[in-house]
Amino acid sequence: MFKRICIIGVGLIGGSIARSARQQGLCNNIVGYGRKQDEKNLQAAKRLGVIDDYTLELAEAVQGTDCVVIATPVASIESIFSQLKPLWSDDAIYTDVGSTKGSVIAAAERVFGRVPDNLVPAHPIAGAEQSGVIASVGDLFVNKRLIITPVGNTQPEAVQKIQGFWEGLGSLVSVMEVQHHDSVLAATSHLPHILAFALVDMLGHKDEQSEIFQYAASGFKDFTRIASSDPTMWQDICTANKDEIIPLIEQLKDELDKIQCLLENDDSQQLFATFTYARNARQRFLDQFNTN
Amino acid sequence: MFKRICIIGVGLIGGSIARSARQQGLCNNIVGYGRKQDEKNLQAAKRLGVIDDYTLELAEAVQGTDCVVIATPVASIESIFSQLKPLWSDDAIYTDVGSTKGSVIAAAERVFGRVPDNLVPAHPIAGAEQSGVIASVGDLFVNKRLIITPVGNTQPEAVQKIQGFWEGLGSLVSVMEVQHHDSVLAATSHLPHILAFALVDMLGHKDEQSEIFQYAASGFKDFTRIASSDPTMWQDICTANKDEIIPLIEQLKDELDKIQCLLENDDSQQLFATFTYARNARQRFLDQFNTN
Repeated sequence: MFKRICIIGVGLIGGSIARSARQQGLCNNIVGYGRKQDEKNLQAAKRLGVIDDYTLELAEAVQGTDCVVIATPVASIESIFSQLKPLWSDDAIYTDVGSTKGSVIAAAERVFGRVPDNLVPAHPIAGAEQSGVIASVGDLFVNKRLIITPVGNTQPEAVQKIQGFWEGLGSLVSVMEVQHHDSVLAATSHLPHILAFALVDMLGHKDEQSEIFQYAASGFKDFTRIASSDPTMWQDICTANKDEIIPLIEQLKDELDKIQCLLENDDSQQLFATFTYARNARQRFLDQFNTN
Repeated sequence: MFKRICIIGVGLIGGSIARSARQQGLCNNIVGYGRKQDEKNLQAAKRLGVIDDYTLELAEAVQGTDCVVIATPVASIESIFSQLKPLWSDDAIYTDVGSTKGSVIAAAERVFGRVPDNLVPAHPIAGAEQSGVIASVGDLFVNKRLIITPVGNTQPEAVQKIQGFWEGLGSLVSVMEVQHHDSVLAATSHLPHILAFALVDMLGHKDEQSEIFQYAASGFKDFTRIASSDPTMWQDICTANKDEIIPLIEQLKDELDKIQCLLENDDSQQLFATFTYARNARQRFLDQFNTN
């Protein structure tokens, strides 16, 4: 499918793309690129056979590639675009894996004046608490959603090729508007992460926190799992998508006001109705999730 | 340890106590009690060998028992106390498994004038999403916390006996003040349940909910697991412990205000600090949880 892929940022996601693309025979050659401080990770990636080779020189990394995958944190993408600009080639397809897409497109507009026709913004909805190439696996994207968010001038052939690539990695690919992607992800991913961080931050500051945690059960463990996610990555995502997230925080505070009010008024009937509605809504989610 | 235990309410918890007590040889005979509408469940309990026998007559159920375990929903406990009052025996120990303890003690005070000396309020921090005797298992309480909340006049020998009973079922038993129990559980269990219900209720009401849920990943599934809990049980618990829960909802709204403010002001540094604090606090919880 591709002769030579350059992966910028060979971490959990970048490394998993490399492993999976190789396993599925979707490319002949994979080169990794990173900064000086990433060299140990790049060495590990080469040693593990995740990539064929690596370089700390971007010009060298992208030379002769027909696909460039930007798999760095969201906050670094603008800087990567700037470094790629003088090296940009019409013969390659560029794509990224950022969790927020509006910010990636805005960064491209700032750097290039307009989003390049051969840049296909994409987002695999997959991940893990661990990070680094050491955590990468070849089946990370199997049966996972992948969303492509082209803009008006994005080349349809480039979109098709990236879609085919991700389907080759096992993903269920959807194409949608940028703003719609950011709105959906704010609801299902960004807001829950903020809630988990907020709850654990709040409880962790209580004097008796060690005792509180002592009596927490497995429900609390599941509920707070996402509060163990990488703080840098989540600070980036939340900042990048704050326009979608802030109204949802407002809505959730309203919802908490509603429940507080029901408790204050001993309105058991409405409390029961709210909890029942939520349980049924989650069942609808599970039914969808399990048939994915 | 006990000759004859009467279990009032042979559901997930009551059934698991029976299975476990029998396996551990902690009693000779177990009788189940329920209402007419519980008869099918009681028949199943007998058929499964969870209890030796059952009856729909409370007087018959408690006759000759030296231990009565009230394992009904929290909201039914006052009514059970009223029914037990004319049958109350000084030769038996009474205990319950309610998730909120202040409400159980208040109910006892209303029914009996003061909490009977031989009533030992207790709470096993264990459970499952499923309910009914069919979901009961013999090892539900192994290595799980159990909290006993005696009052001033509770007989020390009765406390010791209930402590020994639960230790025999494999639980890690603590004894604490009623109010302290309710405060700790509000933080680690009740508030997280309300948050999960609130989030799913809010998202479920959005027009695009089916699509939102379609793009939710496994993090969302874990985060909302407790929103699949029994609405009746949770409406009871939240109502019973509202005095502890409401201030925590207030604190959480303040915490969300803080995060919203950091987002509005692009204060990445403080956002990072908050998320990092939360991640480290959860790690402290995990370290405790895993050495439990």
